[in-house]
Amino acid sequence: MSGAEARPGETGFASVATAHFKDLQSRLCAAFEQFEPTSRFAARSWTKPQGHPLQGGGESRLMRGEVFEKVGVNVSHVHGVLAKEARGQVAGAPESDGRFVACGISLVAHMANPYVPAVHMNLRYLSTSRAWFGGGSDLTPTFAFDEDTVAFHAALRRACDAYRPGAYPEYKAWCDRYFYLPHRQEPRGVGGIFFDDLASPDPSADFAFVRGVGEALLSVFPQIVARRKDTPYDQAAREQQLVKRGRYVEFNLVYDRGTRFGFSTDADPDAYLMSLPPLVRW
Amino acid sequence: MSGAEARPGETGFASVATAHFKDLQSRLCAAFEQFEPTSRFAARSWTKPQGHPLQGGGESRLMRGEVFEKVGVNVSHVHGVLAKEARGQVAGAPESDGRFVACGISLVAHMANPYVPAVHMNLRYLSTSRAWFGGGSDLTPTFAFDEDTVAFHAALRRACDAYRPGAYPEYKAWCDRYFYLPHRQEPRGVGGIFFDDLASPDPSADFAFVRGVGEALLSVFPQIVARRKDTPYDQAAREQQLVKRGRYVEFNLVYDRGTRFGFSTDADPDAYLMSLPPLVRW
Repeated sequence: MSGAEARPGETGFASVATAHFKDLQSRLCAAFEQFEPTSRFAARSWTKPQGHPLQGGGESRLMRGEVFEKVGVNVSHVHGVLAKEARGQVAGAPESDGRFVACGISLVAHMANPYVPAVHMNLRYLSTSRAWFGGGSDLTPTFAFDEDTVAFHAALRRACDAYRPGAYPEYKAWCDRYFYLPHRQEPRGVGGIFFDDLASPDPSADFAFVRGVGEALLSVFPQIVARRKDTPYDQAAREQQLVKRGRYVEFNLVYDRGTRFGFSTDADPDAYLMSLPPLVRW
Repeated sequence: MSGAEARPGETGFASVATAHFKDLQSRLCAAFEQFEPTSRFAARSWTKPQGHPLQGGGESRLMRGEVFEKVGVNVSHVHGVLAKEARGQVAGAPESDGRFVACGISLVAHMANPYVPAVHMNLRYLSTSRAWFGGGSDLTPTFAFDEDTVAFHAALRRACDAYRPGAYPEYKAWCDRYFYLPHRQEPRGVGGIFFDDLASPDPSADFAFVRGVGEALLSVFPQIVARRKDTPYDQAAREQQLVKRGRYVEFNLVYDRGTRFGFSTDADPDAYLMSLPPLVRW
């Protein structure tokens, strides 16, 4: 997408970002389907009914496969007026009348083979009394391989370095702080990057960075999957994976802002809970 | 326990209630072990280290069996000073210096056979600037049988009727309100009773009621287990049970006060998360 196309109109970057997220969704799903002998993504489109305080809609794509045990890639684009109770959770909303536009893409993949890490990515654009981009991506292995961790971080670092010197260590540290389970005193995974409130004087630079993060994930994660998906494993490794997934559930239901924001709205639970793993043990 | 023994001393009912909860724990565990050919409860005692803002300890008992796939029966008795952040969540604490005494018993059973309901019970005593009893018990079937629901509610109703006319419908309605998943627009199970802030002029009446709820559970749940545990089931029924358990996890991690209070303290996560089911599907 060229810089010229990325100039905002009345609704800021909402339209161009949505178009980009839809395109990225298609390319991610196509890349993941390459690993599956028969499984394909099932798409579900949704639109908020007329008269609803939220307007807009989205498309949720879900695949349950042999390599990708459960993977969701969701795009949404909504606008409307935030309920009073929800405004405190959204920057720029308490100072305004609650009107907002939001669009984003969310990806969570839980893998069948315990030696393939789970991955998460979210890219989003929000506009209230002001507008900003946010997002991030992080890796959650049950058994961490340095080779995978290094490759994943290197890809994200390249996207960060192209945006701003110093961005990578800052967003990496933010990720480590965010994806941490205080009650277990352990990190969710091996990190990645997390960023929010990107509102540069030239917002098209922020948008380019967000696109770069999506491309980084698209290039690096399939390589990791290809490297690990046929690793032999026993029942004990599988059990360990199911227990690790329990920590993922604890994080998402107890702490994750996006998930908890979902609970405070009347959004579709199947959309904001698509992050939950297919099979979990406690 | 006689009325004379139940007279409070300096710490109110904490000592007598703790002694009763320990006795109830032993009898519940013994009753559940009757169903198991070989599995037995494993007990884990814990004590807060000296100098810790919380003092006291407890005993967690956990069994993973053939009939009781995962069952925890925990007793704890702690005292100390509530952290400022936690005081707002505990009645009587914001008005005081944060000193409190708490004891309680918690029981959660997830059953192997999808036709046996999961069950939960909690009985507790808290003393801050004032003192009160609370608790409840509720049933969560995947496939509800009227016979079980009726027997369960009848047992709880008898305990309520012996306490105060009108208590049962009031506590039943409180349970229905509490164990509800707004984001799914569905109840967690088929209800039971829920009560809090019992602080009668004669607190020994409240304590007798709380004991009555424990006895009701002890008498009725084994009957339900005996009736359903050998019901033949197929993989589809088991899958439905695993999905239903996902709702249980969602409720406990997102809404349950006791669980969320656990996250806000540095209590042992294995204790307050013992409620989580052994195997879950989303």
